[in-house]
Amino acid sequence: MTDALAKTSLPPTPDYDAWPVEVALHSVDHDDRVLTLRWTDGRVSRYHSVWLRENAADESTVNPDTRERILDLSGLGAWPTVEAAGLDDAGALWVTFRPEGRTLRFHPGWLRANDYSNAGDPEAPLVPVTTWTGRERTAPVTLDAGDWLGQAEDSAEAEGLLGRALEVLLGDGVVRLRRLPAEPDTVRRVAARVGPLRPTNFGEIFNVRAKPEPDSNAYTSIALPLHVDLPTREYQPGLQMLHCLENTAVGGQAVMVDGFAVAERLRETEPAAYETLTRVSWCFANTARTTDYVWHSPVIRVDARGRLQEVRIADFLRGPLMTAFEEVEPAYEALMALQRLLREPDLAMRFDYEPGDLVIFDNRRLLHARDAFEGGSGARWLQGAYQERDEVRSRLRMVWRAERWQRIDSGSGG
Amino acid sequence: MTDALAKTSLPPTPDYDAWPVEVALHSVDHDDRVLTLRWTDGRVSRYHSVWLRENAADESTVNPDTRERILDLSGLGAWPTVEAAGLDDAGALWVTFRPEGRTLRFHPGWLRANDYSNAGDPEAPLVPVTTWTGRERTAPVTLDAGDWLGQAEDSAEAEGLLGRALEVLLGDGVVRLRRLPAEPDTVRRVAARVGPLRPTNFGEIFNVRAKPEPDSNAYTSIALPLHVDLPTREYQPGLQMLHCLENTAVGGQAVMVDGFAVAERLRETEPAAYETLTRVSWCFANTARTTDYVWHSPVIRVDARGRLQEVRIADFLRGPLMTAFEEVEPAYEALMALQRLLREPDLAMRFDYEPGDLVIFDNRRLLHARDAFEGGSGARWLQGAYQERDEVRSRLRMVWRAERWQRIDSGSGG
Repeated sequence: MTDALAKTSLPPTPDYDAWPVEVALHSVDHDDRVLTLRWTDGRVSRYHSVWLRENAADESTVNPDTRERILDLSGLGAWPTVEAAGLDDAGALWVTFRPEGRTLRFHPGWLRANDYSNAGDPEAPLVPVTTWTGRERTAPVTLDAGDWLGQAEDSAEAEGLLGRALEVLLGDGVVRLRRLPAEPDTVRRVAARVGPLRPTNFGEIFNVRAKPEPDSNAYTSIALPLHVDLPTREYQPGLQMLHCLENTAVGGQAVMVDGFAVAERLRETEPAAYETLTRVSWCFANTARTTDYVWHSPVIRVDARGRLQEVRIADFLRGPLMTAFEEVEPAYEALMALQRLLREPDLAMRFDYEPGDLVIFDNRRLLHARDAFEGGSGARWLQGAYQERDEVRSRLRMVWRAERWQRIDSGSGG
Repeated sequence: MTDALAKTSLPPTPDYDAWPVEVALHSVDHDDRVLTLRWTDGRVSRYHSVWLRENAADESTVNPDTRERILDLSGLGAWPTVEAAGLDDAGALWVTFRPEGRTLRFHPGWLRANDYSNAGDPEAPLVPVTTWTGRERTAPVTLDAGDWLGQAEDSAEAEGLLGRALEVLLGDGVVRLRRLPAEPDTVRRVAARVGPLRPTNFGEIFNVRAKPEPDSNAYTSIALPLHVDLPTREYQPGLQMLHCLENTAVGGQAVMVDGFAVAERLRETEPAAYETLTRVSWCFANTARTTDYVWHSPVIRVDARGRLQEVRIADFLRGPLMTAFEEVEPAYEALMALQRLLREPDLAMRFDYEPGDLVIFDNRRLLHARDAFEGGSGARWLQGAYQERDEVRSRLRMVWRAERWQRIDSGSGG
């Protein structure tokens, strides 16, 4: 205990994150199973003994090389409770736990950041979701990326632009980078600054232009109705990127619609159709020449609390509906209500791709479409790729972490 | 109509699949909205007019180049109903639909395969899932793949082995291929016969051996407790492949447990813990030096009908639990019940990797573990990769489709 009290530097945390201490601990009370911390700004936070014990950062709990947990709580022999607790000279919390008799220290910045007793919705998205129609958004929020690929990846400028782009992407579901090189493989260079791609049977990078023996309507010059890509998978790709290399064709304007705004409007105007679309599983299928992807899912997926999780809308990627006989007509009534709603003109943003534009959008939320273009009228060439939303969130957290390290290094916290 | 009745060859289907006609149509009745078909084996099947209209295969419904749908049902002007219907000389069903006055033909093999009025569970897995413990499975079902990579990919032998392997994988959640080359990149060659890999921040192919500055406990020589990989993602990879290149180290035996068997036993023995683990979201996190993946999910995920969807078990990849204060102690009680259950020795299969072994397992269902090995005692080198289960199902459907084409070509159907 003397040893713990004598500490003058803060203890490690069970992660590699940066936790500035912007508010100090003031005092600690406890009973066997709950600690109550008071902070100098008046906040009161409570933590369970079992939660603290499992989240300690010492070598009995985490592997110091990886900071991954090695403790199996059920091996302690008894529920971990508090024998004693206090604050030390470094401003850290120390707790002596039964049955081990082990004293462990906790970092106040980390405790504050993980204060579950005062948290709002712990599963809230990293960036709040803003649904939109074509009235609020006539085009994607656009950032000038003319210098970006020339900047060092970890420079403040490059990180700043990337952070803004990823925040817009998570909030609106779409962002446009402008003035990138109009060169093949730019989409790969941009993606590499975020994380790995998700390859599919269409390749790692796919070229959207009319081609012979097309294996998808996307590779023709016909109009494509509003859709998400690859709803034929258990988990359709979270993100799609489309980069414009050439666009001199007549027609082929891009159309985007916020699928969550569609779902919300349907819930309001046709609640029975909405309910049916969240419940009945449709068959999504691409029974092509050399592959055969099939998945069953409702068109609108909500979680246990009714919050929108994803939409799967793509008339040309639906196989035969296989469901209970008496569900078939209600399912089609609901589907047609959705199809009619998708034609409401105020929903969509419409825009033209310029060479060097790269649009990133959430493929589990946004619908995209394309007007027909005239195959002989000029060239239209987009390169696309998929990525998971996990990569965006991880990358954005790293941008934010770097900002926190800067606050620590500049002495403004911790 | 005369034209339709005169047809002597079967119409196309709205896909590229093979549909042998093994039972012929006998007769058809209809009212406005439902057709009733009788087959020569006595089966009676019913189809809704709206379902038939949307699943036609003519050029008003599908793009003939891609066989993807171009019809928007809600654009027909009225609910499609039946004006007339019959069977033609080729054995196909023809239907004249209102309001279009269009006569469309349907392939009897396709109708039979998509007979939703007699289907069991349309969302049943492609191969029935067999849960197991170490009593039923002391090692993975093992296939001799000594000649496989030397055989042409589309040869009957190669397809036969692949089909058996994928069926075992989907049923048991694990399969072992033996006598593959003990050469680097074999895992990539095997995967390429199924579909694209799923790269992660650990690369496309990862090497499991002790390394300096490990970014995961996997890359040390310590024991790894039972876990799934990457529960820190929205959607943890569906499949993992591990290929053994060298194994002369002392220790390091592989351990596998069927996570669905674990969940079922917990549901039986500790129903309250089971219920809590299906409901409360835990935080899965890998807050590493250069990446920061976080996802919230229950440990056991079930669908709306209570069927097991996936397990997320990995003590070393859990971040701080962030949930309602009063849920924390019940959540930890349930977690410890699960931890104790995982130690029951009859659950696990244990086996040693031999060079040339490649084990493929379902990473959303199976848990894997590794005993500690002695870093200095010899070499232990596995190469691993992830893939999605979608690829396995698509590939297995293609194996089955090839078998159906063979039946058609040999004249035994269609």
